[in-house]
Amino acid sequence: MRDFSQDHRWLSINTATIRKSRGVDLPLPDIIEACARRGIRAISPWRDQVAAAGLATVSRLVKQHGLALSGYCRGGMFPAADEAGRKAARDDNRRAVDEARELDAACLVLVVGGLPGALAGKAAHKDIGLARSQVTDGIADLLEYARSAGMPLAIEPLHPMYAADRACINTMEQALDVCDRLDPQASGALGVAVDVYHVWWDPKLQAQIERAGKQRILAFHVCDWLTPTADLLNDRGMMGDGVIEIPKIRGWVEAQGFAGYSEVEIFSSGNWWLRGHDEVLDTCIARHQTVV
Amino acid sequence: MRDFSQDHRWLSINTATIRKSRGVDLPLPDIIEACARRGIRAISPWRDQVAAAGLATVSRLVKQHGLALSGYCRGGMFPAADEAGRKAARDDNRRAVDEARELDAACLVLVVGGLPGALAGKAAHKDIGLARSQVTDGIADLLEYARSAGMPLAIEPLHPMYAADRACINTMEQALDVCDRLDPQASGALGVAVDVYHVWWDPKLQAQIERAGKQRILAFHVCDWLTPTADLLNDRGMMGDGVIEIPKIRGWVEAQGFAGYSEVEIFSSGNWWLRGHDEVLDTCIARHQTVV
Repeated sequence: MRDFSQDHRWLSINTATIRKSRGVDLPLPDIIEACARRGIRAISPWRDQVAAAGLATVSRLVKQHGLALSGYCRGGMFPAADEAGRKAARDDNRRAVDEARELDAACLVLVVGGLPGALAGKAAHKDIGLARSQVTDGIADLLEYARSAGMPLAIEPLHPMYAADRACINTMEQALDVCDRLDPQASGALGVAVDVYHVWWDPKLQAQIERAGKQRILAFHVCDWLTPTADLLNDRGMMGDGVIEIPKIRGWVEAQGFAGYSEVEIFSSGNWWLRGHDEVLDTCIARHQTVV
Repeated sequence: MRDFSQDHRWLSINTATIRKSRGVDLPLPDIIEACARRGIRAISPWRDQVAAAGLATVSRLVKQHGLALSGYCRGGMFPAADEAGRKAARDDNRRAVDEARELDAACLVLVVGGLPGALAGKAAHKDIGLARSQVTDGIADLLEYARSAGMPLAIEPLHPMYAADRACINTMEQALDVCDRLDPQASGALGVAVDVYHVWWDPKLQAQIERAGKQRILAFHVCDWLTPTADLLNDRGMMGDGVIEIPKIRGWVEAQGFAGYSEVEIFSSGNWWLRGHDEVLDTCIARHQTVV
């Protein structure tokens, strides 16, 4: 297991972590600048932030600062209520691959979607089995395109509390079943993003990380689970403030040969997004060296 | 699959569902009275409500109205930070078995506990593996006592969002692994409570219900998963208001031979607990007949 205590060379910042500074939206160029100033070598930006700043501008800034992208957030949201919706998702996902390629991301992270309409509080149906089937079909279709673009796809199993509205792939086992079906040769074109927030509770986590192996582990995300958790979406904790055994899980992942970045992804409307982004980044660095 | 549309003979009310009426605590004798008045044949009361009313009083009222108990809520909370804590849990769980027996409950429901102290926001440690091991030991110990009392124990796998603070048994598969280990003969002394709220998201749900079989399915609980869900604990929906395919899951359970009550358990600080309990019970009956 790598020693993170001496520096932060393996720290990546998911840009949602400082999406807001003192409660105000922070533009992606400012985020990039703040990361680069601290010697942070990698980020993982969100598409809406890239779109707001302009893909060409972001691409230039990333290259100028020599930043790596530990991932690109995000593709997915495959299930739709009708064929038009599925086609729109397909087109949008291909654009996401193109953007990820332009930014030279390590992978495109897939948040696969749940019941169509559920995110807006109006589920078109309740058939999660159908949604799962559409997700598999959607990934299969996108995989061909992504392969030809040389962009790995990382299925991110989300915590089961997001099964209805954000992602109906909810365990590592389930994600790896999809990988085995669509990429049986484990080519590296399809794998998983292991986010400790989503998977820490899983009694089969260690076994499934071992099953995944180096070829399937494309990203590693950290934050912490707070007790109590005040909000299902936006109350993630800073590493060390919650109950997740992050070093243990990182040890399992690295035992498989994973040697990429440890990406901090914190959504925190009630705490970290209200603080200044300089304080947040400094805290990320300190915690990366001490509790990750 | 049984036809529920003509009456509510298989409806049970978990008394937490009308724990409050118009926001004010409703005593258990009033709850019992309101259920009996509607021809509801079964309830599942909570220990704190029984203690407040007095066990003897509750026992008398239950008998007087000819009510069955589809379960008794609850034992569990096995992990503790020290030996004194574990002994206190053991003693308390034995009292729960005695109470369940006095009330002639179908089973004692076990919410097994998580990291000691986490429910109070101060986890004594983060080792969920240790907590799980203590849970298995605790159930093993209680099982001997419960067997001699003739009281079945129903492990309730809780939704993974409660893994830290309420129950570190989070899937049917995990609960059944414990059952197989402690009661390999499937004697009926140990099984599971299937609550659709906790397990609906699980891609292995149908397979694990089939694995459980009639001998292991001791209780069936219903409510619904709302989108959005405003609170991790107290925003459960009324059946039909959310996205859970309740009839499908009931079909799976009944295909195994389960022929017990369908128990409504709704915690709802922002909606149903604010309404009058008469309205809530009438709604439970109507939904039981139409969407369960």
